Amino acid sequence: MQNYPSKLLEAAVNEFSRLPGVGRKTALRLVLHLLRQQPTDVDRFSNALIRLRNEVKFCEVCFNITDIAICAICNDKKRDRGLVMVVEDVRDVMAVENTSQYNGLYHILGGILNPMDGIGPEQLNIQGLVSRIEAGAVREVIMALSTTMEGDTTVFYLFRKLKPFDIVVTTIARGVAIGGELEYADEVTLGRSILNRTPYDNALAR
Amino acid sequence: MQNYPSKLLEAAVNEFSRLPGVGRKTALRLVLHLLRQQPTDVDRFSNALIRLRNEVKFCEVCFNITDIAICAICNDKKRDRGLVMVVEDVRDVMAVENTSQYNGLYHILGGILNPMDGIGPEQLNIQGLVSRIEAGAVREVIMALSTTMEGDTTVFYLFRKLKPFDIVVTTIARGVAIGGELEYADEVTLGRSILNRTPYDNALAR
Repeated sequence: MQNYPSKLLEAAVNEFSRLPGVGRKTALRLVLHLLRQQPTDVDRFSNALIRLRNEVKFCEVCFNITDIAICAICNDKKRDRGLVMVVEDVRDVMAVENTSQYNGLYHILGGILNPMDGIGPEQLNIQGLVSRIEAGAVREVIMALSTTMEGDTTVFYLFRKLKPFDIVVTTIARGVAIGGELEYADEVTLGRSILNRTPYDNALAR
Repeated sequence: MQNYPSKLLEAAVNEFSRLPGVGRKTALRLVLHLLRQQPTDVDRFSNALIRLRNEVKFCEVCFNITDIAICAICNDKKRDRGLVMVVEDVRDVMAVENTSQYNGLYHILGGILNPMDGIGPEQLNIQGLVSRIEAGAVREVIMALSTTMEGDTTVFYLFRKLKPFDIVVTTIARGVAIGGELEYADEVTLGRSILNRTPYDNALAR
């Protein structure tokens, strides 16, 4: 049992130690760091949190984090509106955007099915995805979720949910990483890369 | 270069990534975690920071973090007021208090001398220590700083600074950890533990 010399210090340490991967020792180190900064720095920190909490929005179309009602990607008229990539959260959108290889829209689920953590279909933005497809215009849905058991379950659930619609459902390719050596690839990935082999011309064109 | 879909998100990530040991990816993970919490949780987080920044005090005597003008330790009449342990920050106070082996007061320097980082004697609470000793009542100052080059330099600086006064200056014992095996102790520690050997009676009495 630690004896904090100040209730205020303890309260701040409590808050930081609620963050994932932050223990009480790390939390204390972070709080002491903040105390050593200029008061204006601490103000800026807490203001950033308050503004985030009060003003951040989720895009009405794709549920991405945004400052406006409809996010910049959904607003971009040059993007292919027939293509929707289903991802778990905003980090995946940023990762895909960084590849500069995708010109369609996104749909952010806000998580994946995980009954153990109490995350069922109602906790995810699945109804929003169905509504977008019901509205027409979407011709292909690309699943880009983690290849964990939960991710695969979610893809399967969505696949059944989208079956009634006249659209193509694809998943991003799984295979040996570019620059990766065969002998270090795990068996499942290597096996999948053989099953899903692509014509050589096609591979060259990428 | 990351493209954040929201300026508010980016601002919060910037603040978190200024913390020591927190990179931009971790910062984004922490901010997304906060966004998934209840709004009241985010309020409590930012309020804890604001209150810490506005209301936390540094003890007028020992410079420990406190909610009142003079901290609970300095206020405790049962403690030995002739004994002052010099430490770097509040974490050291908490570590020593957890041993239940110390009944004196503390003096928190707020860091150690580190010219490379621009920390000279003026940046530390050294004048406050000298004033406490000038006021009398202190008979022994125990140095409990890190045994790094900076820590040793600070101890040496303080030792010279306190030389004019009629007090004893000691340092905490350095030696092989209790439960530690000789063969795994580093040479410097083992060498010091031989030089500073203690009479067997004395060791038993601890």
